[in-house]
Amino acid sequence: VLKRTYDNQVCSIAGALELIGERWSLLILRDVFLGIHRFDDLQRGLGIARNVLRDRLNLLVDEGVLERRAYQERPQRFEYHLTAKGNDLWPVLHSIMAWGDKHAQPPGGAPTIVEHRDCGGRVDGRGVCERCGDLAGLADIKARPGPGAVPGHPLLRAAGLRSSS
Amino acid sequence: VLKRTYDNQVCSIAGALELIGERWSLLILRDVFLGIHRFDDLQRGLGIARNVLRDRLNLLVDEGVLERRAYQERPQRFEYHLTAKGNDLWPVLHSIMAWGDKHAQPPGGAPTIVEHRDCGGRVDGRGVCERCGDLAGLADIKARPGPGAVPGHPLLRAAGLRSSS
Repeated sequence: VLKRTYDNQVCSIAGALELIGERWSLLILRDVFLGIHRFDDLQRGLGIARNVLRDRLNLLVDEGVLERRAYQERPQRFEYHLTAKGNDLWPVLHSIMAWGDKHAQPPGGAPTIVEHRDCGGRVDGRGVCERCGDLAGLADIKARPGPGAVPGHPLLRAAGLRSSS
Repeated sequence: VLKRTYDNQVCSIAGALELIGERWSLLILRDVFLGIHRFDDLQRGLGIARNVLRDRLNLLVDEGVLERRAYQERPQRFEYHLTAKGNDLWPVLHSIMAWGDKHAQPPGGAPTIVEHRDCGGRVDGRGVCERCGDLAGLADIKARPGPGAVPGHPLLRAAGLRSSS
């Protein structure tokens, strides 16, 4: 059960922070957005304690942000995928990423580039394509590793998982 | 000094979360964005422990997100205002607010309405005016209390402070 830390705050920001403000939740969601769906892969990539990861995933499932999909029987194993409610968090992650690219960027440059599928232009943190000017939603974009990507980057880990399975 | 909880994560999201992922930081920034600038007013409105508020404000000043401006001498007292780096966090707060309005809304409706100054249209979480279609930045918008605003709403508190000073 989520501790309602902001109980006296009647506010949509406080309401959202009760869920996504929990430590690790946004980094877990980042990895799922970028193609990492299984418990062990999330755990290895994030370097997070297993019990903490389990708690966060349970919370995100209980709150309808992620859903479990069985990919194996005996023993039954699940992948975690975003629901529609979870997909709606993309603008939050993207705006945080854009701010971090500008103000907290790793020395090598942007770790992740978000591109418009239609024209290949770069999409800014508000979802505007810098080449064609269109507003690009989650279905219209793709992410690729940028110049600041390091080996542990979730996109590189996701690609490694796909090629080894 | 900020504990670097996400130390092994080379990522602009992790970098940003080191600062704004700290508990309370985004709610403090929300209040400053909505017009509350003084320590005691922030403390009363948020119901946050004074030492915690002091730590968070010091961190946000150290990181260049907020700046202190003296408004009184003997004893010297300060207001907290957003820097350019802080203003760049508006899309993060607005996208969180939009998600909360949709998925974690208080029963009374949206607590805060963001409007386009030019045309009065409502501005969505990506900064697009729903009436005229323009992209509206921080300088182009104003916030007003929505149907779900309660007496403790930061905009109502800020208005109360202005009228009593």
